[in-house]
Amino acid sequence: MLLETIEQANDIKKIRKEELNILAQEIREFLIRTISVTGGHLGSNLGAVELTMALHLALNLPEDKIVWDVGHQSYTHKILTGRREGFESLRQFHGLSGFPKRKESECDVFDTGHSSTSISAGLGLVKARDITGGKHTVISVIGDGSLTGGMAYEALNNASKLETNFIIILNDNNMSISENVGGVSKYLNNIRTASSYLDLKKGIYNALQGTRRGDSAISRIRRAKSSFKQLVIPGMLFEDMGITYLGPVDGHDIPAMVSVINDAKRVEGPVMIHVLTQKGRGYRPAERHPARFHGAEPFDIETGIPSHPRTVANYTDIFSTVMCKLGQRDERIVAITAAMPDGTGLKRFHNMYPERFFDVGIAEEHAVTFAAGLAAGGMKPIVAVYSSFLQRAYDQILHDVCIQNLPVVFAIDRAGLVGSDGETHQGIFDYTYLTGIPNMHVCAPKNKWELSDMMKFAVGLGRPVAVRYPRGTAYIGLKEYRAPIELGKAEWIYREREIALFAVGSMVKTGEAVRDSLKEKGFGVSLVNARFVKPIDEEAVGEACRDHELIVTMEENVACGGYGEKVLDYMNRSGCRSRVLNIAIPDAYVEHGNVELLKQEIGIDAGSIVERICEAWEKR
Amino acid sequence: MLLETIEQANDIKKIRKEELNILAQEIREFLIRTISVTGGHLGSNLGAVELTMALHLALNLPEDKIVWDVGHQSYTHKILTGRREGFESLRQFHGLSGFPKRKESECDVFDTGHSSTSISAGLGLVKARDITGGKHTVISVIGDGSLTGGMAYEALNNASKLETNFIIILNDNNMSISENVGGVSKYLNNIRTASSYLDLKKGIYNALQGTRRGDSAISRIRRAKSSFKQLVIPGMLFEDMGITYLGPVDGHDIPAMVSVINDAKRVEGPVMIHVLTQKGRGYRPAERHPARFHGAEPFDIETGIPSHPRTVANYTDIFSTVMCKLGQRDERIVAITAAMPDGTGLKRFHNMYPERFFDVGIAEEHAVTFAAGLAAGGMKPIVAVYSSFLQRAYDQILHDVCIQNLPVVFAIDRAGLVGSDGETHQGIFDYTYLTGIPNMHVCAPKNKWELSDMMKFAVGLGRPVAVRYPRGTAYIGLKEYRAPIELGKAEWIYREREIALFAVGSMVKTGEAVRDSLKEKGFGVSLVNARFVKPIDEEAVGEACRDHELIVTMEENVACGGYGEKVLDYMNRSGCRSRVLNIAIPDAYVEHGNVELLKQEIGIDAGSIVERICEAWEKR
Repeated sequence: MLLETIEQANDIKKIRKEELNILAQEIREFLIRTISVTGGHLGSNLGAVELTMALHLALNLPEDKIVWDVGHQSYTHKILTGRREGFESLRQFHGLSGFPKRKESECDVFDTGHSSTSISAGLGLVKARDITGGKHTVISVIGDGSLTGGMAYEALNNASKLETNFIIILNDNNMSISENVGGVSKYLNNIRTASSYLDLKKGIYNALQGTRRGDSAISRIRRAKSSFKQLVIPGMLFEDMGITYLGPVDGHDIPAMVSVINDAKRVEGPVMIHVLTQKGRGYRPAERHPARFHGAEPFDIETGIPSHPRTVANYTDIFSTVMCKLGQRDERIVAITAAMPDGTGLKRFHNMYPERFFDVGIAEEHAVTFAAGLAAGGMKPIVAVYSSFLQRAYDQILHDVCIQNLPVVFAIDRAGLVGSDGETHQGIFDYTYLTGIPNMHVCAPKNKWELSDMMKFAVGLGRPVAVRYPRGTAYIGLKEYRAPIELGKAEWIYREREIALFAVGSMVKTGEAVRDSLKEKGFGVSLVNARFVKPIDEEAVGEACRDHELIVTMEENVACGGYGEKVLDYMNRSGCRSRVLNIAIPDAYVEHGNVELLKQEIGIDAGSIVERICEAWEKR
Repeated sequence: MLLETIEQANDIKKIRKEELNILAQEIREFLIRTISVTGGHLGSNLGAVELTMALHLALNLPEDKIVWDVGHQSYTHKILTGRREGFESLRQFHGLSGFPKRKESECDVFDTGHSSTSISAGLGLVKARDITGGKHTVISVIGDGSLTGGMAYEALNNASKLETNFIIILNDNNMSISENVGGVSKYLNNIRTASSYLDLKKGIYNALQGTRRGDSAISRIRRAKSSFKQLVIPGMLFEDMGITYLGPVDGHDIPAMVSVINDAKRVEGPVMIHVLTQKGRGYRPAERHPARFHGAEPFDIETGIPSHPRTVANYTDIFSTVMCKLGQRDERIVAITAAMPDGTGLKRFHNMYPERFFDVGIAEEHAVTFAAGLAAGGMKPIVAVYSSFLQRAYDQILHDVCIQNLPVVFAIDRAGLVGSDGETHQGIFDYTYLTGIPNMHVCAPKNKWELSDMMKFAVGLGRPVAVRYPRGTAYIGLKEYRAPIELGKAEWIYREREIALFAVGSMVKTGEAVRDSLKEKGFGVSLVNARFVKPIDEEAVGEACRDHELIVTMEENVACGGYGEKVLDYMNRSGCRSRVLNIAIPDAYVEHGNVELLKQEIGIDAGSIVERICEAWEKR
């Protein structure tokens, strides 16, 4: 196996040229085999095998720097920098991360996870190099999907005046996670698919050079007027911005890419290499179903079918269903996603109401202000988005939605710990950043029926509101508790004395387990489903203070600015003197791994919580 | 006066065509006269007089919709929609806002204040129109400066697939607040300044049409190779994205603009009209010093000199000075601004160390990740930014700076209440959104010397840190209190018993006044300069609890997620039982007006605080 000879950075340079494609094949098989067991980002990695090899052949690591946009396509890079054996523990607790991590290797120069950051970070590395007199090469590798994110454009705009070398590789597979959208995508697509464009281009130039009468080429141009503008000079959009454009080049042709990278290194200024790749390349199921194999669960290699097919509904499914109902009931319901029609569950809504569905690309900022515009125009927009990605649109929520008190509903999926994607994807800050915003309302359901009820409540509220639910299986306990949703009202599940648990969202289920344990120990324990994090149910807290000595708040959000602090604040204002224990995520990023393990690690699983309550009870 | 005949929307249509320029002149004089007294955004409004008139002539308000990007250029729009008389109270408490406000007029369809939102909001209004079968026109007016903001590009990308009319007017004055930067600016500038481009364009087309041999035009093209790409078809960058481009058109020629707007209304799809305007047009001082007259203080019309020239230093000046010192001391210090070299005080640093200064355009997201890249490359970046604009980069702080624990310093100006710019510009959320982020540190100086000390501390810390200071005059009291800055350590100013005031930043000065009043009433009062909002000085709080019955926290930030809640949280965890009163900004947006008036209104001026303390003392 050639693969076994790759033990550290630059080992790839020892492979004979004619064997590079064999190595590529071995890497591909390794990726498929590994990810079929661990799960992970398959499609993007299969697409980037040769591109990564070309980069490692053309560069000297770690002196030269590669910044991977998003970073989920960095598996081959990890393999080529001595981390092959770590793949057994890929995305597992204390194991190899699925994204670049500076702490893992000096060949990882910048951590990523969210989209569209690589050009900004790369430009920073370039300027640092130039100021300190360095001579190394800096390359940012960005996908065409990531190029729909506005900050990539801010960075291109800024890079354009650079007078030293900076290479941007546009890894163009014509996909975000799902199909890519928008003007730039269409533009790139025209370059990709015009099979004869090189001939046409040559024809035009010949014509213009007067080698034969220009009129013939010109008549061809006029026949294809729209093609003209896009094809005379591919990459003109980037050239217009001051970026030298090279390409397109076949992203599965290693020598061609090495050659163009070496050309690019000689450009004194910003240069973009347009590389055409195929997502899922070399594994038929992934080539055919790119969205399904973007972030894959473990699967059977032969068939591509998940090894552990899902049999129970998750919260996304419930949201998906309720959206279809809401859409039917009210024609003003519109749905917005930032490149996540599958992940957010909006695909069915899209199929049923295509004219009221909007995929805006990886563009959370635009998504939110666009929703605000729809609301100002009389619609009832629902923005479905992952918690950690909504961070991108904090200012738009504050400035465009909430100042005007517009009725935009945020359906926040993947809130709380998400597990294997790690630090960048944990949705553990939304209570903090959302509840600080005036006019915002925030709630979280305890189980699947409550998600449905809350969504209906939210679209009827007529003001900004966020409904927040976690990744994974929807809880089906407590079915019999279904008090109507009222703004700022909690739901009492069990009412006793001594200890009152105020649990939010996913923590209600944990609260039940905690209560059972405490009951066994002889405590009287009330359980309250908090429902609202903004506004909190002050009455319920006040009531609890009257006959409970210890109030315990439980949430899957950082403590700072979370639900617990709001309860404390109310108790302080109202003079309640009960002891309070806030169970929340400590003030630190949470790495990747199984969610249950992570919860134990940070002390918010049922067992840890029981211990902490007993301790607090002693000290009360 | 023609101006006096304009009493409501559409009254302008009664003016005879040949008198429109007279009206424009009257509006200009009115703007200069009014703003010379009240202060306000002069330059951008003088530049947009004819453009606004043309819009009002070509449209029917309020049926048709105009979304103003940023919105500071909407004064003529306000005059033409019956709000002329409100200008006496412009930007004053309970008076006319300096920005579009839905609550002011039905002709204001979307509130703005921050940059680059108008295309997103306009597209939302377009989609709402199309879904409900409306026929009205929607126009977003965006400046070339705002076009450096990424979300504008996200919106253009999304708009490109539209099949119904949507007009974007690019109001191109070749300026952000200061000079505009970047590739797109250069591109637009090439269109602007190529005086002969129309002839050249015509020449090329003639050539291509074969009316004479193409070779002659082509040789001209080849002589000016770089011009070729940009001049063959002006606006090609936008056309490449799928946006029909019309222009450029003279932004001070009313009939020409009315005509092109009417043309644009017939396009079935997105269309951009490129309008060339001159910032400050018609008032020599503003034409010559556009940055100074962007947001002007009251001034003498004759000379353009401020009526009340500033004689004392504000915090921005102090920051400006310390930056020059820091830059001299350490060559790794680099400074970044998002289009605010003047406003943030970085101009002097720019002059002294041009190669270490970066103006990235109105692009806060890129600014922060670019800084993270610089830090990863070994630099010590300082991002100087206004509090409310940093909201744009929340995710970049969390995701690109803090996960990697990179030593980026945020110098946050205009923090706390800013006054006349109102809701969108009040910097009252930063403690909340910053302190929720792991690895972040947040501090605020009590006076000018402490700002200087904190900046030095911050660049030496080697981790992410924000130094937060308010708009306006730097406090020069408490000069004798200058204990060295230590991470997470507060500074005791007065140490007594009974009541302890823990004041942050600007509130230390207020704390002194509060203390004086309380002393007069016979209380023992300690005053602590909190210095750090993250991490808070738990030891100082614990110490205070031992011999004070009432702890008062004081901050210029919303209560939710602010300093007070952190103190409460610590006291709860440690079992302190003193009574706490949190003085902070209530959970509501704060409108425009004089800062002292606003503080009274929301109960955080010294007088209100004394009352609230006395009340809390009674109830303790």
